Amino acid sequence: MSNKSSTAMQGTALWQKQPKANAELFALTYGALVSELVRDLETPAEIQEQLDSMGHSIGVRCIEEYLAKQDSMTAGTPSFQESAATVQIVYRMFLGIVTETAAGAAVSTTEHNPDSVYSISFTDNPLALFVELPSTGPLVDLEYSQLLCGWMRGVLEMLQFDVVVTVEKSTLRGDDTNTLQVELKQVLQQGAGEDYQEE
Amino acid sequence: MSNKSSTAMQGTALWQKQPKANAELFALTYGALVSELVRDLETPAEIQEQLDSMGHSIGVRCIEEYLAKQDSMTAGTPSFQESAATVQIVYRMFLGIVTETAAGAAVSTTEHNPDSVYSISFTDNPLALFVELPSTGPLVDLEYSQLLCGWMRGVLEMLQFDVVVTVEKSTLRGDDTNTLQVELKQVLQQGAGEDYQEE
Repeated sequence: MSNKSSTAMQGTALWQKQPKANAELFALTYGALVSELVRDLETPAEIQEQLDSMGHSIGVRCIEEYLAKQDSMTAGTPSFQESAATVQIVYRMFLGIVTETAAGAAVSTTEHNPDSVYSISFTDNPLALFVELPSTGPLVDLEYSQLLCGWMRGVLEMLQFDVVVTVEKSTLRGDDTNTLQVELKQVLQQGAGEDYQEE
Repeated sequence: MSNKSSTAMQGTALWQKQPKANAELFALTYGALVSELVRDLETPAEIQEQLDSMGHSIGVRCIEEYLAKQDSMTAGTPSFQESAATVQIVYRMFLGIVTETAAGAAVSTTEHNPDSVYSISFTDNPLALFVELPSTGPLVDLEYSQLLCGWMRGVLEMLQFDVVVTVEKSTLRGDDTNTLQVELKQVLQQGAGEDYQEE
């Protein structure tokens, strides 16, 4: 069995065991959250920062649950590029969606080391079922699904990767798919913290 | 087949056909929404008012989708007490939970006409999977799941019933079940609005 189909099967098995909510109600509740932030904050940048921060907390919760369900004998420590497969499983388990990954930058540039970048793509965005962004005004540039960037950041932080996640393509902006690019900033040390600093 | 089992079967069939999200992610997203309101608003009353208003919008969306899926030949116009069965189906379809209904006031008083009150109860609250309310401070009295009151108000408004929904029991407050009481204020007229007012 290829790694790819193994990843897909693991993700599907975990998804099937998860308790379910209604996807439309979930999307509407996320919409209420974004609307609330739009009401309270001044700029798209501030709204996105808040969504990113919320996503981070939720991502940490999700990956902790995923890791708790893994057989510790087989878990091992993935390399950064291998972490893409884990991220795909966690997407399937918590967002219910099948994703594609590709190594290297989504938009080819010379500024990235190809080993420290990958992208995740998916056709249907479960957060944005009923959403149309305004075509004018300050919210034109709002990254509606920024929560997913923070969510991936939280997931990867627990796998010891400090990353930057950016939206490269978005169906809300008329692209044919949704693509998030993940770039490694640094590999975190296990147990890094005050004790580690003092050594 | 009894009406009760017919209601349960209809609700289950609709639930099974709905697209699904992860219930834990849904609960965490709702938690992020409540936290955001806690940060921005002063009092539990203001937070609840906002949750109620969001719930109303979402409830209107949900019942419209439910009604669109009904066979218009069999839909008919329910009486207020009959609307409890519709509410149960909509709970199952959108929240995935099985509810119990009881005619009359949840807490027996002389102030309600028993025909104009019923209650809905459910053991597991899908909004509150990971929640513990603080035991001291201003949020002790927060009705965390007030969104559900607004949601029911939205659902019943589309069935032409103007209602008041109140939380009578809450597992978050240590009760053994969650009970929402629905009281009829007035039956709305089909198409009531400016045209109607002018007659």
